[in-house]
Amino acid sequence: MPIPEKRTSSQVKTAAADIFKKDEGEGRGFKKAGKFVLSSKLWESSTPSKTCDVIITFPKDTEDYVVMWLLSRLRARVPDIEVHVRQMANSPVYGFYLTASYETFLRQAEELGLRKKLIGGGMVEFKMEDKELFEKHDDPTAFFTSGDRQSMILEMVNGLRAVDGDELGKITFCEGMQIVPRLMAEGVVEKMFPLHNHDDLAKLRKSWVQAFFKKQPLDDICEYFGVKIAMYFAWLGMYTKWLIAPAILGIVTFVLSMRGEVTRDWCVLAFNIFNIVWATLYLEAWKRKSAELAYRWGTLDMPSEALKDPRPLFRGEFKPSEITGQMEPHYPSIKRNIFRYCVSLPAIIGSLGVVVISMLCCFEFQRWVDMMDNPPKPLKFAPKIALAVCIGMLDDNYKKLAYKLNDKENYRLQETYENHLIIKLVSFQFFNAYLSLFYIAFYIQDLTRLKNTLGALLITKQVVGNVKEALVPFVKQKVKEWKMKKQAAKAKKEKEEKGEKDKPSELDTPLMHQAEIESNMPEYEDTFEDYLEMFIQFGYVVLFSSAFPLAALCALANNVIEIRSDAFKLCTNLRRPFGERVENIGTWQDAMEVMGVVAVMVNLALLGMGGSVQRMFPGMTVTERIILIVVLEHLVLGIKFAVAYAIPDIPEWVENEIAKVEFKRREALKGGNSPNSPPQMQREPRGKQHFGVRDWY
Amino acid sequence: MPIPEKRTSSQVKTAAADIFKKDEGEGRGFKKAGKFVLSSKLWESSTPSKTCDVIITFPKDTEDYVVMWLLSRLRARVPDIEVHVRQMANSPVYGFYLTASYETFLRQAEELGLRKKLIGGGMVEFKMEDKELFEKHDDPTAFFTSGDRQSMILEMVNGLRAVDGDELGKITFCEGMQIVPRLMAEGVVEKMFPLHNHDDLAKLRKSWVQAFFKKQPLDDICEYFGVKIAMYFAWLGMYTKWLIAPAILGIVTFVLSMRGEVTRDWCVLAFNIFNIVWATLYLEAWKRKSAELAYRWGTLDMPSEALKDPRPLFRGEFKPSEITGQMEPHYPSIKRNIFRYCVSLPAIIGSLGVVVISMLCCFEFQRWVDMMDNPPKPLKFAPKIALAVCIGMLDDNYKKLAYKLNDKENYRLQETYENHLIIKLVSFQFFNAYLSLFYIAFYIQDLTRLKNTLGALLITKQVVGNVKEALVPFVKQKVKEWKMKKQAAKAKKEKEEKGEKDKPSELDTPLMHQAEIESNMPEYEDTFEDYLEMFIQFGYVVLFSSAFPLAALCALANNVIEIRSDAFKLCTNLRRPFGERVENIGTWQDAMEVMGVVAVMVNLALLGMGGSVQRMFPGMTVTERIILIVVLEHLVLGIKFAVAYAIPDIPEWVENEIAKVEFKRREALKGGNSPNSPPQMQREPRGKQHFGVRDWY
Repeated sequence: MPIPEKRTSSQVKTAAADIFKKDEGEGRGFKKAGKFVLSSKLWESSTPSKTCDVIITFPKDTEDYVVMWLLSRLRARVPDIEVHVRQMANSPVYGFYLTASYETFLRQAEELGLRKKLIGGGMVEFKMEDKELFEKHDDPTAFFTSGDRQSMILEMVNGLRAVDGDELGKITFCEGMQIVPRLMAEGVVEKMFPLHNHDDLAKLRKSWVQAFFKKQPLDDICEYFGVKIAMYFAWLGMYTKWLIAPAILGIVTFVLSMRGEVTRDWCVLAFNIFNIVWATLYLEAWKRKSAELAYRWGTLDMPSEALKDPRPLFRGEFKPSEITGQMEPHYPSIKRNIFRYCVSLPAIIGSLGVVVISMLCCFEFQRWVDMMDNPPKPLKFAPKIALAVCIGMLDDNYKKLAYKLNDKENYRLQETYENHLIIKLVSFQFFNAYLSLFYIAFYIQDLTRLKNTLGALLITKQVVGNVKEALVPFVKQKVKEWKMKKQAAKAKKEKEEKGEKDKPSELDTPLMHQAEIESNMPEYEDTFEDYLEMFIQFGYVVLFSSAFPLAALCALANNVIEIRSDAFKLCTNLRRPFGERVENIGTWQDAMEVMGVVAVMVNLALLGMGGSVQRMFPGMTVTERIILIVVLEHLVLGIKFAVAYAIPDIPEWVENEIAKVEFKRREALKGGNSPNSPPQMQREPRGKQHFGVRDWY
Repeated sequence: MPIPEKRTSSQVKTAAADIFKKDEGEGRGFKKAGKFVLSSKLWESSTPSKTCDVIITFPKDTEDYVVMWLLSRLRARVPDIEVHVRQMANSPVYGFYLTASYETFLRQAEELGLRKKLIGGGMVEFKMEDKELFEKHDDPTAFFTSGDRQSMILEMVNGLRAVDGDELGKITFCEGMQIVPRLMAEGVVEKMFPLHNHDDLAKLRKSWVQAFFKKQPLDDICEYFGVKIAMYFAWLGMYTKWLIAPAILGIVTFVLSMRGEVTRDWCVLAFNIFNIVWATLYLEAWKRKSAELAYRWGTLDMPSEALKDPRPLFRGEFKPSEITGQMEPHYPSIKRNIFRYCVSLPAIIGSLGVVVISMLCCFEFQRWVDMMDNPPKPLKFAPKIALAVCIGMLDDNYKKLAYKLNDKENYRLQETYENHLIIKLVSFQFFNAYLSLFYIAFYIQDLTRLKNTLGALLITKQVVGNVKEALVPFVKQKVKEWKMKKQAAKAKKEKEEKGEKDKPSELDTPLMHQAEIESNMPEYEDTFEDYLEMFIQFGYVVLFSSAFPLAALCALANNVIEIRSDAFKLCTNLRRPFGERVENIGTWQDAMEVMGVVAVMVNLALLGMGGSVQRMFPGMTVTERIILIVVLEHLVLGIKFAVAYAIPDIPEWVENEIAKVEFKRREALKGGNSPNSPPQMQREPRGKQHFGVRDWY
């Protein structure tokens, strides 16, 4: 029995009394609820905020006129959104509770070209006049998913644009500026987030988090969390599956290589070749799979980037866009390029140089200590500490620099911004993760030590990672649940003492409103960290697994857990993210392609140094051996590129499906512009089916 | 004063008397005209076949019932085409003269989505109902260009499809098969070709062939010859312009390198680096330019390949297409792939192996002879003769094999077929052109000889090439003109002797019909040979110009002539080709990218071997030198790929133009499907603007 949220408060603080609606029902019972906000048990049993899709909250102590200012603009310029203002119960925080009527959503869906399922099958852009052809069109509560509604509200809120003369305190707006993103960037609005849907989430928990060895329900994930997150899990799932082959072969190699030097040489050679082929094929296979998924989720060949709204922090001269006519910032790309190539690039290369040199110094220090006969104890640990401190400091500073440079480069789109940030951050992480191994392999040339270090790294890193990601939150949750139970019991006791006569049911039923709890949950921090972790692991497997054949097995074991712990994280303790539309995994694919090429070089160099070649061809001089390895390397790289070139990136059936849609569209055009042509005929062609930056589910 | 072509002959051979129209007026005076058909002077003054756009001819001695069979089907199934049948005057050859009415062309243009210019500017698909908004809409003779009409006729002829039971002699047709392409493939129809337009051609001759140092009129070329040919000339023009820089630097290097060893070493190093950078930037710049041109000519992001008609020789099980529903052959791509990788690939690699080994044997033979003190004369020339015979035979056999394999691979589209053929043929030509140079450079390691050989090759090859392409046809033409004059004088004399009283004007006016002359002209043999010649030259420049710095200068001098001689060829002595739509230069771009990568390796290897490194770092061991060169090579390749990755393939303004069109389309869609929305609003989005395989100009 959800508490009706539209009830007007009788206590009002400001002159804007009639506008602010503070819900006393919410406010009364849950003064201490802030302490429980991370408890998922509590949250699950909270009252769902049924009549609300998206929440906007303001920071503590926001003055009323600020809230008023935004509210009046929202009401005047986007009258279709229903806004309810409440003060949170347990803290002096205002919240806008946003939703809209079914009719508004229908209109919005048509305007934005939201794609819905036809009764006969097939996704087409929703048209009001063909409403009865769509699935579930007669059920207003089921026709749009919660994700659909949230994305539409988001787009409506982002559609609130400034007019000349708008200003709020020191913040002045140019004509046409998006108000809410700007306010968020300035910190005036604290957060805007969509609400979870308990039923869908419960389903996902069952079919995804707990179904350990089952296929991931990718379509459901995509529907609930959006394409970007679903794409990450699809990628992770496929990578994990592909790891099975090198894991098995790794065990075989490991076992066989204990049978003497000759067997080992051949085993390592074979495993080496297998690894290179595997990496190439895997990357190609993912490209095809990704195209398939993008087609299924409607993001293949997205619309021109110039049509997307700029990200809120994009700066530039405000003038009408030559494309849409709307006022928006313009920043000449020549300026960006000059900065990028004359400042960013040298700065990044210089910093990476400093990183490499500092790390190498630490390694040399370590080596010097290791070679001492009987080093004093403090000296023994000094290099390790130096390295840790060094990396910690460098990491911090490098990150700051990378963000600063990336901000200065001033990219128009969020996606481009992120991709360039990824390149910068990954470059650092590459050295951070692999430099010590390169040092051992190619400078010290100690393959046994390489093997041991790699094994230790893989196992400790992954155990630590999983503990951090899954076990810690799990324990935290258990502790919080226990605390909450105690608190609830205490509250009950207090109430009983006070003699208040609550209905018994009210003590067992939810204590807090869902919106309030979720606003205090931590945000999902983007897919970056998750990808990075996997990328580093991918590197260990393809770069060095000929030195430590069990690398793939370790990775496989880790990933089986990783998938579910990442899923657990998303479904349990985090605020729901807005769905984002992406066509593929972006820069990560490129980064892995580069890793694939580096892998060829590293594997062949290891082969050349490992003594196998000497044993296989004892008569060769060093020069001849180097030339052999180099020629082999060029050959392998040549074949690798040829294979990548020969395998089409988009599967044939997807091409055919796209062609089918295009053919129908043409036939429809030939038939004239009759407004009564069936909706299949109005399908848009490949690449033009989608609108905007966010996800429309 | 054109002779009216519809005049019915009074002499008829067959029972189909009323269908065949043999033009006596044409037949009488020009019995010997066959001898002059290559004479462009004669052709220029021939009677233009104004009422005819496309000609279909049958081989000599074709039986009448065959002609009848096709004619009746054309008239019944494509009634909009006007077909006139004539027997050629100077040989027993039947010809169909095809055209259509203005109204038919208008309808056809709308159906095919032909793009025409609006009065206000901008190309949009032609719509009958908005006719008055288009430029020249009130002038039926000028609204469609000759290229427009020819492409539409071609599409209409190709639209003639078989029904069940159609058969002609031994040729049986499946339901839905395209009849005319099939008949051409079987040799029943000899040729189908569009007619030249004398006015446009005269303009092109003036502004293109004769304007030696002016910019090429690319848009006019595109309008007359279609995108594919225009793209070749655009590419050649840009390549030639870019050659100016290395030509100048080459001269500088050449001059400076005569000032002693140290200067030479640094010069060669600098020139080496410049060459690599130049090749990379040139390839990127062309990609951008190509996208620009494709946008301007309306071929950027062409429609899905699955919507194009299969090429006539495509075999497969006949069944309805799952995309268009039309009957067409199906060939599972798995079969093709199996053949390609299990038969073609090994066969090609094997053959190339044979080629390389044979050539190397000849080189070794030569070397053996060269080392003899006083070889007998016949032995002196034996290796050269052996090589020539060897290459001649190998070339023939390899070509046969390549065509056979490519046919067996059974590609659905002409374009794919050609691209795969190019890969096969270019692989052979690569060894043919460069193996001797590689042999001299890396096996004999004689850089002086490399320089001499390269210089000789570049100069002789190009002089011979230009003589063959430009001078020979020119002389031929002069001779023919002279012969023709004599003949005409003789004919005049004969007539005068016979006392025939022709009007004096008739002797001076054209002697032959344009259609008849053009049917005897040689066909334009595709852009392949032209591209190949330039590709080989590009290779000489980027691979070896550090050995012979004047390579770029030679290439530049050649290309300035090459452009005009290729233009001369097209505008003077060849049958007009149908315009073809292409998005870019296809496989040639890939081939040149590969060449760019090979160039890095070759240049650095030459650097490592040339002694410069030894002189620069005298203390280095051989092993260290090799490692230095290899590391340098990897670094350069890395930078090369990074540069290619960083430069966007499509210029920003093109992206913006595309976005603008897309935005307008969306706005129009939002405005409802009103049939009266202005035509700008019906512009199709990026990638979907174009229809079919051929060019619509």
